[in-house]
Amino acid sequence: MSPSPAYDALVAHHRRVHDLEHLQAIATWDRMTHMPTAGGPARAAAQAALAVLIKQLQAEPTLAQQFEAAAHEPLQGDAALNFARMRQARRIEAAIPAALAERRELATGAAMQAWGRARRDDDWNTFADAWAPVVAVTRESATRLGDALGLQPMDALLERWEPGLRIARVNALFAQVQGWLPPLLEQALTVQANSPQPLEPVGPYPAAAQQRLCEQVMALLGFDFDAGRLDTTQHPFTGGVPEDVRMATRFDEANFLPALMGTIHETGHSRYQQNLPRAWLGQPLAGPQSAALHEGQALIFERQLAPEPAFCQLLAPLLHQAFGSQPAFEPDNLARLMQRIRPGPIRVAADELTYPLHVIVRVEIEQALVAGEIAVGDVPAWWHERMQASLGVGPQAAFSQGPLQDPHWVHGMFGYFPAYLLGAMVAAQSFAALRREVPDLQTQVAGGNCRPIGDWLAPRIWQQGARHDLDAMLQQATGEPLSATALREQLEQRHGHSH
Amino acid sequence: MSPSPAYDALVAHHRRVHDLEHLQAIATWDRMTHMPTAGGPARAAAQAALAVLIKQLQAEPTLAQQFEAAAHEPLQGDAALNFARMRQARRIEAAIPAALAERRELATGAAMQAWGRARRDDDWNTFADAWAPVVAVTRESATRLGDALGLQPMDALLERWEPGLRIARVNALFAQVQGWLPPLLEQALTVQANSPQPLEPVGPYPAAAQQRLCEQVMALLGFDFDAGRLDTTQHPFTGGVPEDVRMATRFDEANFLPALMGTIHETGHSRYQQNLPRAWLGQPLAGPQSAALHEGQALIFERQLAPEPAFCQLLAPLLHQAFGSQPAFEPDNLARLMQRIRPGPIRVAADELTYPLHVIVRVEIEQALVAGEIAVGDVPAWWHERMQASLGVGPQAAFSQGPLQDPHWVHGMFGYFPAYLLGAMVAAQSFAALRREVPDLQTQVAGGNCRPIGDWLAPRIWQQGARHDLDAMLQQATGEPLSATALREQLEQRHGHSH
Repeated sequence: MSPSPAYDALVAHHRRVHDLEHLQAIATWDRMTHMPTAGGPARAAAQAALAVLIKQLQAEPTLAQQFEAAAHEPLQGDAALNFARMRQARRIEAAIPAALAERRELATGAAMQAWGRARRDDDWNTFADAWAPVVAVTRESATRLGDALGLQPMDALLERWEPGLRIARVNALFAQVQGWLPPLLEQALTVQANSPQPLEPVGPYPAAAQQRLCEQVMALLGFDFDAGRLDTTQHPFTGGVPEDVRMATRFDEANFLPALMGTIHETGHSRYQQNLPRAWLGQPLAGPQSAALHEGQALIFERQLAPEPAFCQLLAPLLHQAFGSQPAFEPDNLARLMQRIRPGPIRVAADELTYPLHVIVRVEIEQALVAGEIAVGDVPAWWHERMQASLGVGPQAAFSQGPLQDPHWVHGMFGYFPAYLLGAMVAAQSFAALRREVPDLQTQVAGGNCRPIGDWLAPRIWQQGARHDLDAMLQQATGEPLSATALREQLEQRHGHSH
Repeated sequence: MSPSPAYDALVAHHRRVHDLEHLQAIATWDRMTHMPTAGGPARAAAQAALAVLIKQLQAEPTLAQQFEAAAHEPLQGDAALNFARMRQARRIEAAIPAALAERRELATGAAMQAWGRARRDDDWNTFADAWAPVVAVTRESATRLGDALGLQPMDALLERWEPGLRIARVNALFAQVQGWLPPLLEQALTVQANSPQPLEPVGPYPAAAQQRLCEQVMALLGFDFDAGRLDTTQHPFTGGVPEDVRMATRFDEANFLPALMGTIHETGHSRYQQNLPRAWLGQPLAGPQSAALHEGQALIFERQLAPEPAFCQLLAPLLHQAFGSQPAFEPDNLARLMQRIRPGPIRVAADELTYPLHVIVRVEIEQALVAGEIAVGDVPAWWHERMQASLGVGPQAAFSQGPLQDPHWVHGMFGYFPAYLLGAMVAAQSFAALRREVPDLQTQVAGGNCRPIGDWLAPRIWQQGARHDLDAMLQQATGEPLSATALREQLEQRHGHSH
């Protein structure tokens, strides 16, 4: 007999939930990519029924008994670590009473609906009324979660996305970026103004040709098509399960770059998913646990690798083949298109120099909101003031170009935004270490071999699952804990002087 | 408060199972149409986990109490009928003890694997060893089911597919067909031999053009594309849920007829699904409950409508458009291609005159097997003797052309085969009534309007769900209980004399 029957039962429970969530993931993928319109209500009912069932499984009294009993079992090594991760997740779950969780669900549902209308009608006030309950529920959740975990409220929210990381650390890192980034941005804009503009590619770019191109690039980056696929959708996403990753994107026939760059980004997320430790899938130890680490894997491909001349040399013939030859597809020009700086109001359209500033504005505002230092009604004024000060962005055309552009806060994802900039640091720091350890990387990539990147990342990060927190993971992989230094060096190297 | 809380709880239970099976249906569709190969094991685990959960829901002790209590509640009309259907299904379910159900599952799983290998290696003996336990389990199940329902074993098996129908009635109907069909077949073959052969269409037929053609024909036949779709697959099937029907077919680029005729057939099944009574979906009362009735809906489109000159007139321009013009696509020639008689060893490739004989052979053999009159080892000899006697088919080339051609018996679907010939009777009887009541049907169809068919079937059959058994349904819809007369008239009219 096993010396840890209670722990074994918990493992089986997590495995079962993993299996059931597999079906939710595929049903969601289908809903976003293939489902005919009239199928919506039945699908919503079906997914809701399974969600209720999963909740019931999580709430079974035997589960609480197994947690009690497993704490006295002789667990060691990975099992002990896995059990610790299970307990922490349960602690977080248990800190939110059912009534509060239900209020959160109702509030975010209503806010998401109001958000859609508000973007269409450019109507902040109606949105604010629907959103205020989300902010209230978030504050209450943060306090309760903080009490349960012994953390300040904002740290408690952050804990869900970045276990072990504290907001003071995030603020310190972001303050460093605030120090060196604005002058670098100014310098880069001056250099850019004094350089010839890149050639603009000329469309149209048929969707089918874009799809083939994206699949070729995914293959180049090591995406495993035996364990995943690419489809088209209205709202791009990456879903599915680690064993079967489903990427879905949208093709703009007037501009191939959004789908291509989005695909390169998502391929980073996907390869991480595809390479999580197989034997542990379904267990908390399999991870992923850090949103910044996940984002970092995507940015390694999108921001570190893709704009490099060696990679643009690989891309050029694929573009010629997909859309016919044109001078704008030459490697140098492609690199300049990808590295072009264009300050603007929209985060998801931002370049690598202005993107960090978008994130910092959001992280400032969400901290003030959670702390109650500002109210929902103060957000637009704060937003405009901060965007103007840090990005020089003038008065916005519409709220959808301002505080209504992102869905995160609408469905209560406070504490997630730091991951976008921390992820850029992760990517730069990882890629710098990779280049040190694989000195001929550029040559290999230029020759068509991108495998050294995955070969380096897989054992150091992807297959580590949730064994270590972000700092320890980076320490092991790169020799240093998380820092902004590599990001600064990379951005300065790419944008700091005429080249 | 509701006067029938226990019945209401049972309704909610059935609704929940319907919702969960929705997710199974979509996961299966995805597995057959889109899933990459390496996703298989995780998908199997996920679907098994949900299947176990659904079984657990069915086995909950509260459910038994609710059945007890609901029997004393004042149910009327549809609710009373729905409850009766629930009880019968539960009686059937309860008649098979868990240990026997598990043996059945293991036996059919092993037999299905052996079947695949046996077809490849043309190895009857190895298959027979794996299949014998399936037959044993079937006999035991039939006896237990019969005891529970007060039926003979074969009637008990039939009850699962054709509630209320007895095997003696099936045999009597089939004996009639055995009387008039062989001479008609002989006469038809003589007529055919003395007539000019139809022109053979010339391929290739690109898969994409076939897919568009099939979608056009589905639209013509009233398939609701807002509540369903057509995809490609290795093994054609129709799945999904009534709210979102998923058809999937395979395109042979050398021959467009299999996919086209298969699509027309499946569109009949699909329209039935799409038009089951919406308010009752998930309840037994929504149906479908008769396999013969379901098959009949498909055969109305495939065998009654499609080979008619009026419909071939609609098809011809679509074929010209899809594949370029050729004389073989002219309406007369199309009709002759569809009506061509070609006796052969394979049921699914059979024409409408020989198909009934294939079915009768199987129904004879399965009765003898279930009754223990013959053993597994006797099947090949019986098969050959019967096929030769009734179809004049000579010695088979391989077992996959003989008793290994169908999967039904391999996974224990005894009692299903009658539905294929009963369905042909349903189709002929319904279509004859429809033509009497819609005298200008041919003109309307030739003019591009196939809607009268669905308009006639929807209120009389599709939306009736499981309100009536097969005889009562046909009595209401056509004025007569199930009979072979209309089928005989239709076949004689089409094949009985030179035309």
